[in-house]
Amino acid sequence: MSDCIFCRIVAGEIPSQRVLEGGDWIAIRDINPAAPTHVLVIPRRHVDSIAALEDGDGQLAGALLLAARDVARHEGVAESGYRTVINTGAHGGQTVAHLHVHVIGGRQLTGHGTA
Amino acid sequence: MSDCIFCRIVAGEIPSQRVLEGGDWIAIRDINPAAPTHVLVIPRRHVDSIAALEDGDGQLAGALLLAARDVARHEGVAESGYRTVINTGAHGGQTVAHLHVHVIGGRQLTGHGTA
Repeated sequence: MSDCIFCRIVAGEIPSQRVLEGGDWIAIRDINPAAPTHVLVIPRRHVDSIAALEDGDGQLAGALLLAARDVARHEGVAESGYRTVINTGAHGGQTVAHLHVHVIGGRQLTGHGTA
Repeated sequence: MSDCIFCRIVAGEIPSQRVLEGGDWIAIRDINPAAPTHVLVIPRRHVDSIAALEDGDGQLAGALLLAARDVARHEGVAESGYRTVINTGAHGGQTVAHLHVHVIGGRQLTGHGTA
């Protein structure tokens, strides 16, 4: 059994609210939302972070951004706008060592996400 | 001549500090950096935003995330960590209507980029 919480969510061993899913990813609601829409796009395959992506992972990485686009449409924030954030490592504030893309919207966001 | 400032930067009509470049993208320093490292990865082809990506643009989208990884290595923040932010539309705080990926690091970032 994996110790990675997101691998366990992907496997269905830990419950989550799935919003959408694709061949390479699932999208779930953040359990501590920072805005009315706060969804995490998570690759099914374990990858620690962007920093751990290999050159051959371009298709997977692209699928995650297209998934973020699809999540925004599904959540009804594609027109009003949204922010897509990927945190990597300590300075980035990454809290789970399994690559995930935050899709955040439903209210005005300020700055560049650089607080 | 395009009215898009990033298309003009890609074309070299407006000066910029290029950090790295690839076949599909350039990476330049943000002129108003929010952290010691603040680089923008910009596709050479004009795309308004993530919301405007087509299903066939997965390779391009993936190249932008791999470019962010490479920029972080180049800037020496791959180990300390960094944040990757894409703002889309009004609520996201998108200021230039040409897709760009912020790569931000060199200091501790807080929150989820959701201020």
